[in-house]
Parts: sequence; structure tokens; C-alpha cells
Amino acid sequence: MASHRRLGVLGGMGPLASAQFMCRLTELTPARRDQDHIPTVLWSDPRVPDRTEARLHGGADPMPWFARGLEALEAAGCGAVVIPCNTAHGWHATMAAASRLPILHIVDAAAADLRRRGVEGGPVGILGTAGTIAMGLYQERLAARGYACLSPAPQDLEGAVMPAIAAVKAGAVRDAHDPLVAAAKALVRAGARAVVLACTEIPLAIRPEDEAPVGVPLVDTIDALARAALAWARPQAARRPAGLLEPS
Amino acid sequence: MASHRRLGVLGGMGPLASAQFMCRLTELTPARRDQDHIPTVLWSDPRVPDRTEARLHGGADPMPWFARGLEALEAAGCGAVVIPCNTAHGWHATMAAASRLPILHIVDAAAADLRRRGVEGGPVGILGTAGTIAMGLYQERLAARGYACLSPAPQDLEGAVMPAIAAVKAGAVRDAHDPLVAAAKALVRAGARAVVLACTEIPLAIRPEDEAPVGVPLVDTIDALARAALAWARPQAARRPAGLLEPS
Repeated sequence: MASHRRLGVLGGMGPLASAQFMCRLTELTPARRDQDHIPTVLWSDPRVPDRTEARLHGGADPMPWFARGLEALEAAGCGAVVIPCNTAHGWHATMAAASRLPILHIVDAAAADLRRRGVEGGPVGILGTAGTIAMGLYQERLAARGYACLSPAPQDLEGAVMPAIAAVKAGAVRDAHDPLVAAAKALVRAGARAVVLACTEIPLAIRPEDEAPVGVPLVDTIDALARAALAWARPQAARRPAGLLEPS
Repeated sequence: MASHRRLGVLGGMGPLASAQFMCRLTELTPARRDQDHIPTVLWSDPRVPDRTEARLHGGADPMPWFARGLEALEAAGCGAVVIPCNTAHGWHATMAAASRLPILHIVDAAAADLRRRGVEGGPVGILGTAGTIAMGLYQERLAARGYACLSPAPQDLEGAVMPAIAAVKAGAVRDAHDPLVAAAKALVRAGARAVVLACTEIPLAIRPEDEAPVGVPLVDTIDALARAALAWARPQAARRPAGLLEPS
């Protein structure tokens, strides 16, 4: 039923990022009571093999795990899927071919958020995993929208960004803060007019209050994906009295 | 496969409480990387009719909604269910009869946490919804374990606790803090040796740092339920190399 679209979340990559996605989806929904919120199913399978390892170092293929989750979300009655993991979007086309459900794209969500923040074009910095950068996930899709992408220098990527992401995944969120802010500042010095936090672990360590010292808009891809999901779900349709509804 | 038990979460009551449950489950899991975490499916359906309304004021029956969620969690391959909503446990026996999955009980989780905190018996305060208090959800189950339960005075329950819970559900978490701390202090003045935050919206507003001014242990039922889920899932079994696993 279009008025109560159930959202599917293919998550667990990492599990804290998808939990945070659920928090932000709830906080960004205009609501006065439980019944105003969007029905959602989160498939959180943290056992999915590491996406950067698979892409760059011949690690185990995550695609069978993605397919299992998409199948479960479809069986649960979801009408669309979001994936709170940027690197997993390297398999977006393969997943879209394997599932009947539309899969919203996190780079499109980030582009919408750049526009919302008033950044209409020009160079933007991409702070993401080595896998996301090497695949050109943002570069190609943003170029089509008038943005040029700046990536961290290789030594920053391997020496600061990747260890910081690993620290968040290991629960040491505070250790990740300073290296990530330094990497964002380096992108601004290289000419970035905004920095996309293009790994969903990064907004767990860099907070909105870091925007002022960095000096340009920071696009949180967890929030951007939550806004895209809300736009899909059209929550205004969910304001009918709960008593008129049946479980679906 | 017993070594990778998939946890089902019947959530959305409220949606922020179940999102917070997912965060705390992740944070409380000993893990160095994504693959160490527990596979989980969250069925978040915030459209479930209000549980206190159903129990006390003849509101719509939530049971068909619970049944739909339990069915989906079973179909998704979950091996047990937790429900991050205290009042919903008024339907625990009915749900257990309707589902093949074991449903961990939040009051048992709270009792385990009282023991973990060194509170072995005596009077404990129950800060929960009018529905939870009126059903005697804690009173009966804790009495069997040597705890006597103290409830808020009726005027505190309707004048402070219920409006504070509604404020959290409406996103006004800060407005809920002072009335809830005052209600906890009133329970301590009445003799409580611990206070159970027996509605999953309450730990969103009362934080661990409130424990010192209240003066007794505060049992967070979101955390208690996450610990019970971890004990069920035995995460130590999840430390095998991800490459040896198949999606299940």
C-alpha cells in the first residue's frame, strides 16, 4: 500500500552505522507519536565479508550475502532498500539486477544533500574507504552532476583514514576523530568546497560541531541516506489514525 | 547454525528505543571488527497501536501487529526474539503461544541486571508506563525473585512520567529529563534501593550520569535486554574467519 511503504535497510556494514541510520531516520521524521514513523525492516548481517578487501585484495565475495539480505527484505514486504555502507555500493548494479526492489543510491543521496547545503558544483572532497576511492564510486556519479572529486593523498588514505575507520568498527570512536578531521582539512587545503563523509563509519566520529573548524559543509552520508529514504516513504501519508489500519 | 544465531528484534515501540537498542547491542558486544557482531533483524513497525491505550482505555488491539512481526522474524531465520518495549510484554504469554520462537522477557533481563549491579533483593522502584504498572508486569515477576516493587504515586504517573514518555516519543527528549529524575528521586524517598527504567523511552532521557544525584542504581532496560540478547547469542562463536562462512 503506497500510503505505508515499508523501508528495507540492508545493514550491518558496520552494525553501528546501521543502528545510527535507524536513529537518524527516526530523528529526521516529522512525528508527534510512534504511529507517525515509517515501518522499517533492518537486516543487519555484520558477517558480510569486508567490501574493501573484496575489491582491492581478492577477499571473499560479499555478493551472496547481499543477495540473501535483499531476498529477506523482499519477503518481509519492503518496497525499497537503502544500504548504509558506501563501499557496498560498488555492487549496486549487480544488486539491482538481482532484486525486484529499487535500491536508493547513497551517492545520489549525497548529491541531493550537497544541493540542500547550497553547494551547486565545483570540487568536493571524498573521505571514504580505499575501496570506495579506488572504485571511483563518487567520481563518476558526481561528475555527471557537475562536481569534481578530490580524494585523500594515498599516504593519508592508508595512514589515517583507513585506520580511523577500523577504530570506529572496533568501538574506539574517539581515537578516530583527530585523524579524520585532519584528513578533511587536507582536502579543503587542496580546494574542496565541501567534504562528503563517504563512509558511514566516519559520521560516527566526526560530528556537526567539527564543521566550523574544517570550514566547509560536511555531508553526512548517514543523514543524506535517511533524508532520501524519507522522501521515498512520504511520511505525511502515515498520519491517519492507527485504528483505521491493518497490519501489512 | 547454533554458532551464528540470528537475533530477531520486534521493535518500533517506539522507533527511537529500538534504534537505541541496536546501538547498545553493538556497543556492548566485544568486537574488533564488523564480522565479530551478531546477525540481527529489526522489525520496526511504529504503527502498532499504543499498548497502554489498549490495556487501560479500550484502544485498538496490538496483538495482530505483534503476530505479523513475529511471523516475519521467523521467516527471516531468527532463532529468538527480544522486544524493546516493556508494556508490550503484557502480551508476552499470548505472543509466546503464537510463535515458535523463544521470546526473551524484559523483566527477567532487568532482574539479571539488578543482580549484576549487586541489588539482591528488597524494594525496587518501577518507573514505567501506566499500562506496565497497572498490569503488574514487574510486580509479579520480580516478587518471585525476592524483590518488592514500588510504583510512582498516581499523580506522579499521570502528571509527570506519562507526559515525559510522550515527549520522548515526540522527539523532545530534553523536556523529559527533569520530570523523570524527580520521579526516580521520589521512589528512592519511598525506600527504593534501585530504580528500574521500565519503559524503553526513559533511558533515552535519563543518562548514566543521573545515577549519582538519584543515589541508587538505575537499571536501563534497553541495556539489560541487550545483555540478555548477547548471552543468548554467544558472540564468542562468531570469531571464526568470515571466509569460512556461508550466508545463512
